[in-house]
Amino acid sequence: MEWRRLRADQLRDMARADAIVILPVASLEQHGPHLPVEVDSMLGETVAVRAARKIAERGQQAVVLPVLWTGLSEHHMSFGGTVTLDFPAFYGVVEGVCRSVLRHGFKRIVLLNAHGGNENALRTITDEMTPKLGVPIVQFTYWYAAAAAIAKILETQGALMHACEAETSMMLAVRPELVAMDRVGMAKANSTPDVADVVGGGVYRWRTIAARSSSGVIGNPEAATAEKGERLFEAIATALADKLCNAELWELP
Amino acid sequence: MEWRRLRADQLRDMARADAIVILPVASLEQHGPHLPVEVDSMLGETVAVRAARKIAERGQQAVVLPVLWTGLSEHHMSFGGTVTLDFPAFYGVVEGVCRSVLRHGFKRIVLLNAHGGNENALRTITDEMTPKLGVPIVQFTYWYAAAAAIAKILETQGALMHACEAETSMMLAVRPELVAMDRVGMAKANSTPDVADVVGGGVYRWRTIAARSSSGVIGNPEAATAEKGERLFEAIATALADKLCNAELWELP
Amino acid sequence: MEWRRLRADQLRDMARADAIVILPVASLEQHGPHLPVEVDSMLGETVAVRAARKIAERGQQAVVLPVLWTGLSEHHMSFGGTVTLDFPAFYGVVEGVCRSVLRHGFKRIVLLNAHGGNENALRTITDEMTPKLGVPIVQFTYWYAAAAAIAKILETQGALMHACEAETSMMLAVRPELVAMDRVGMAKANSTPDVADVVGGGVYRWRTIAARSSSGVIGNPEAATAEKGERLFEAIATALADKLCNAELWELP
Amino acid sequence: MEWRRLRADQLRDMARADAIVILPVASLEQHGPHLPVEVDSMLGETVAVRAARKIAERGQQAVVLPVLWTGLSEHHMSFGGTVTLDFPAFYGVVEGVCRSVLRHGFKRIVLLNAHGGNENALRTITDEMTPKLGVPIVQFTYWYAAAAAIAKILETQGALMHACEAETSMMLAVRPELVAMDRVGMAKANSTPDVADVVGGGVYRWRTIAARSSSGVIGNPEAATAEKGERLFEAIATALADKLCNAELWELP
Amino acid sequence: MEWRRLRADQLRDMARADAIVILPVASLEQHGPHLPVEVDSMLGETVAVRAARKIAERGQQAVVLPVLWTGLSEHHMSFGGTVTLDFPAFYGVVEGVCRSVLRHGFKRIVLLNAHGGNENALRTITDEMTPKLGVPIVQFTYWYAAAAAIAKILETQGALMHACEAETSMMLAVRPELVAMDRVGMAKANSTPDVADVVGGGVYRWRTIAARSSSGVIGNPEAATAEKGERLFEAIATALADKLCNAELWELP
Amino acid sequence: MEWRRLRADQLRDMARADAIVILPVASLEQHGPHLPVEVDSMLGETVAVRAARKIAERGQQAVVLPVLWTGLSEHHMSFGGTVTLDFPAFYGVVEGVCRSVLRHGFKRIVLLNAHGGNENALRTITDEMTPKLGVPIVQFTYWYAAAAAIAKILETQGALMHACEAETSMMLAVRPELVAMDRVGMAKANSTPDVADVVGGGVYRWRTIAARSSSGVIGNPEAATAEKGERLFEAIATALADKLCNAELWELP
Repeated sequence: MEWRRLRADQLRDMARADAIVILPVASLEQHGPHLPVEVDSMLGETVAVRAARKIAERGQQAVVLPVLWTGLSEHHMSFGGTVTLDFPAFYGVVEGVCRSVLRHGFKRIVLLNAHGGNENALRTITDEMTPKLGVPIVQFTYWYAAAAAIAKILETQGALMHACEAETSMMLAVRPELVAMDRVGMAKANSTPDVADVVGGGVYRWRTIAARSSSGVIGNPEAATAEKGERLFEAIATALADKLCNAELWELP
Repeated sequence: MEWRRLRADQLRDMARADAIVILPVASLEQHGPHLPVEVDSMLGETVAVRAARKIAERGQQAVVLPVLWTGLSEHHMSFGGTVTLDFPAFYGVVEGVCRSVLRHGFKRIVLLNAHGGNENALRTITDEMTPKLGVPIVQFTYWYAAAAAIAKILETQGALMHACEAETSMMLAVRPELVAMDRVGMAKANSTPDVADVVGGGVYRWRTIAARSSSGVIGNPEAATAEKGERLFEAIATALADKLCNAELWELP
Repeated sequence: MEWRRLRADQLRDMARADAIVILPVASLEQHGPHLPVEVDSMLGETVAVRAARKIAERGQQAVVLPVLWTGLSEHHMSFGGTVTLDFPAFYGVVEGVCRSVLRHGFKRIVLLNAHGGNENALRTITDEMTPKLGVPIVQFTYWYAAAAAIAKILETQGALMHACEAETSMMLAVRPELVAMDRVGMAKANSTPDVADVVGGGVYRWRTIAARSSSGVIGNPEAATAEKGERLFEAIATALADKLCNAELWELP
Repeated sequence: MEWRRLRADQLRDMARADAIVILPVASLEQHGPHLPVEVDSMLGETVAVRAARKIAERGQQAVVLPVLWTGLSEHHMSFGGTVTLDFPAFYGVVEGVCRSVLRHGFKRIVLLNAHGGNENALRTITDEMTPKLGVPIVQFTYWYAAAAAIAKILETQGALMHACEAETSMMLAVRPELVAMDRVGMAKANSTPDVADVVGGGVYRWRTIAARSSSGVIGNPEAATAEKGERLFEAIATALADKLCNAELWELP
Repeated sequence: MEWRRLRADQLRDMARADAIVILPVASLEQHGPHLPVEVDSMLGETVAVRAARKIAERGQQAVVLPVLWTGLSEHHMSFGGTVTLDFPAFYGVVEGVCRSVLRHGFKRIVLLNAHGGNENALRTITDEMTPKLGVPIVQFTYWYAAAAAIAKILETQGALMHACEAETSMMLAVRPELVAMDRVGMAKANSTPDVADVVGGGVYRWRTIAARSSSGVIGNPEAATAEKGERLFEAIATALADKLCNAELWELP
Repeated sequence: MEWRRLRADQLRDMARADAIVILPVASLEQHGPHLPVEVDSMLGETVAVRAARKIAERGQQAVVLPVLWTGLSEHHMSFGGTVTLDFPAFYGVVEGVCRSVLRHGFKRIVLLNAHGGNENALRTITDEMTPKLGVPIVQFTYWYAAAAAIAKILETQGALMHACEAETSMMLAVRPELVAMDRVGMAKANSTPDVADVVGGGVYRWRTIAARSSSGVIGNPEAATAEKGERLFEAIATALADKLCNAELWELP
């Protein structure tokens, strides 16, 4: 399931079996006073592997590359602990990975995004790469692709935000030793809505997180539980597998 | 109102008055059997100028640059008549224009998009440019920013599509001599939904238009009328002016 | 005649008929105290369309793309109102347009320049693109290509300069409402010759316009008349059509 | 110790304490018939973390970024399972990470290489980045920096090679479940020396691995044991910590 | 006089004395059946050094960098023996040299061109570099800057062409052993005028030399003599020194 | 032997004879108080030509391009007199030359390095270019390729350094008029070892020369003699010819 743990001969077999190749793309960036910087990378990789397992259970094959932890996080930089690329470097690394994969005979690629700051860039990369590479490239951010499933589980938020009820829950499920619930109070009630959301109607701006939240948190981590995290993983993986097993998704460009 | 028709001294005055600078970004691409390739450029520029007028009526100033007609239209290329850039060239020209504008003392920029193929790229450009330039850059595609207003006017579609009821109506309002309504039958009923829409959930793919519509039309141009077009322009310009006059939109990044 | 006003099917026909594709390349830059910044774009597009009409009268076909208004105008920036790209962005957009045109089957391209600051760059682009694209690319600046015709009409200048007798006359012919003849006195007699012209012999330097003229004008706009402008357009269009209809011009590279 | 497991506040403390930042740079590439493609990434990250621990034992601080698994592996591509970037993308990602680290106040960077194909590129990047960034950047490949220690432990090789006695031993120590010792016979005795080594004297060529070894192995994996692997880790980490704690190493450029 | 033959301390003195720095830019390209490929490099360097000597005789200082022999010669490639860069590489090397020179305190740069294929590119580079570097950069091609002097000496041509009366004469003056006058008959009378010259009026095209001359020669090498070559060098150097000693040439941009 | 002195027809013959093409790559950089900045270029070109002659004596053909004097010398810049490129420009020019050479039918390339600062970059370029170009590219720095021969001749150093016993001797052999032996005392005993050498074990850092030597010299120029220089040239050329005539060196990548 995990590309890195396979041998070259096993990966050649995977290519011959037309396995779906999933590249989780995430980040290392501040996650408030209570979470480690690896959150997006950890969640993205976990979601991808769980989805791949469900795909395998349905008789198709999927293989998951290691997470790309070098994302686009300029908006988090002022908090420290954050790593960011610029767009050309980010494009270069995503394109290099995809080209390598195709040269080995794979024909289906998923850019599974797990970090908000990457969303626009990955769509742009999909637009540029697809006609050049000539294969189906499927791109999505997991919390949008599984939004309905997530909304049903969360109690205090309508959607996954940042270092919030959802992300904190999922970290409690897989890395409880890295969640400082005793520090969660420092994140309380200090974020404001995005200016574009106020104005509405698809209006877009790039803002720093600091302009919206002094703690770096957006959402409500106090409502997090490990059990909720486990249910989120299960629901998200199922939603993703449902979509990725849909043959229509893989029509040629 | 139109940058190109002003003298340098008038534009220096505009900068001193902190005018909003609107850059319409569009394309030259096939618009089915009945419309000229200029549709997106014509509509984008018209929408921008009408919005600027409404902004002026409310006591603020706005100035509209000429439309950038060199957009991203690889997905339309197989139909002929289409011009496309790649992303680096597109970024280069948008960035060059914005940097010029800022050097003259303007401090507020709108990237008003009028072509679907530009949407992801303009968001990526906004993400890259804003922290480098340090000023508020507002980006939107006009039919998303004015979606509610548009939906109320259209009779056979829920939203603006391509060479459709909405675009054909607006062209009938401003360039009736270029609309070949006698050819509109060739566009009838031959598009299929986007594969990503079928799968849903924020899943994204780049597809050629040819994969979805043999005529190059998506939507229903037969329902178009000039009167509907005029109402669309009025409603869209009002919606955009409402948003752009909102002071909250212009907070520093 | 105008690419933007044609439908895709009409442009496919144009390609089959081996039409000459003319790309006017100009700028938005200060034009002294009396003219709008659109001068070069307006004149370049007008000249191109008029030349195309004369070509059609002679039984050949030509089609004119919209003017590229994003030129190279760093030397005008200190006056305000000016937009400039750097060379890589300028190259990217010109190359992207030319590549699009060739993909649709056209085989003859004219880069019709209407802005002094673009001249060297367009020659460099012609040098780089021609061997890569393998088709004849014809490049010229209209006032050099029609220099003899222009010289006969002007009364106080030997050649077209900047915001001068020639440009002001042509603007009076097509956009009289944008010419502030009451401000023309501010441009009087305040330019000095280019240092390279003083030294002579092909010596070249890049200078700001401000180093040569406090008003941003070079030449004598006071002698301008609309009638002279109309004669200039007629003479220039004829001169260009003469050249472009010469079959020798279109030999393979 | 591991950057990814720390919170932003902890990383801000690390920067204030002038911690050494170690970036392990490796690859995903074929490792013969018996090893997974993650070998270089696994070993590079393990070596880095163990060295950081030893540095901490000596009273200094070090923090280890996640391994960059996107290396330069064109020479392995024909075997499948391999991911490679080109140089500009590789440079972009390394530079992006280093620039982020410095913006948070860190002042000492180690590019700890764990993949032969990266060696030249990382030196070139060090040459380019150091004068631009103005801080000490220390670059090395771990098996050269610890060559003496490694040579003492190996029984059938003088140095670490590829999928060999050393790498297989270290994998047996940390990921025994991924080592297919029953397949090791397929790697037997089928590599030839590098042509440059035959000619000697610093002569360099780029060659595919396939030109030298049909199995993709260079060296002798049959002599591998987990115990040897553990001793290798210990010796390498000690050697690296010795060097990195040397204050002379950190003089300004 | 020659940068390469000076020590660092001597060049520091040169900078303090505000010496003019001359960079001869040329090429290695076919020069017909009778001349070596070094012609443009040899002549460019010789002309530069002789001009520098004359400048010194007039009490100013000039220093000549080694010739850049990596020019733009795609149009000569089909003849063999030719080296060409693309524009970005050519720009990179010219810019790198100029930036180095300025960092040492020099303030006046001459790009002395000795190869037709470089002319447009060097003007573009001058346009791009001057506003960025902020110092006077003087660019010219020596046979245009000294056209009048050259015309007086030549007997069968009006101007310097390629492997012609002028170039062959100058090579006879400085490298007679490399001129195969016995092969000069192979170059006889086989070139045709440039298509742009036929059409006239500043019309420009890029053409291969092979399209105009089967021998690779343009002009009349049979009329060449060493004595004429010596007179050409003397006249050209004098003309260049006259121009370069003109203080007006060195006004700030 | 020297590409620049040959005609195009002679170079076409060279290509047909499968001649080895040697590109000497060097620099213009400070060489202490007693040597001109051309040292690396002069020595690199001389070594290359002498090696080519020895190759010819053994019945093979070799041709030497002019030296690339635009190297990577940022570490010498503070002394003045030095020219440096950045890596992308350096790569561009090396790649442009190699591509030109291959287009003429040559199939064997040597990047003969004569400047320490180029070593890492040339290896990186070799890694990038070889798989793209598909021919054998041999890269080495001459003093490493001939290290044993050099060590036998030097009396006060173990290896060639900078402006040292070896380089000064070789300059005394070929350009005695440019060696200021009366200034050699200024270079005495003022360099310290490289910090990486102190730490050992393949540890690498980029340092300025100024950090190690106030005179810019590393090594002992006082021991230099012309006779020693001549012996060095002879020994180096022989060592290089030995290697380059080895057929094994030229196997396909």
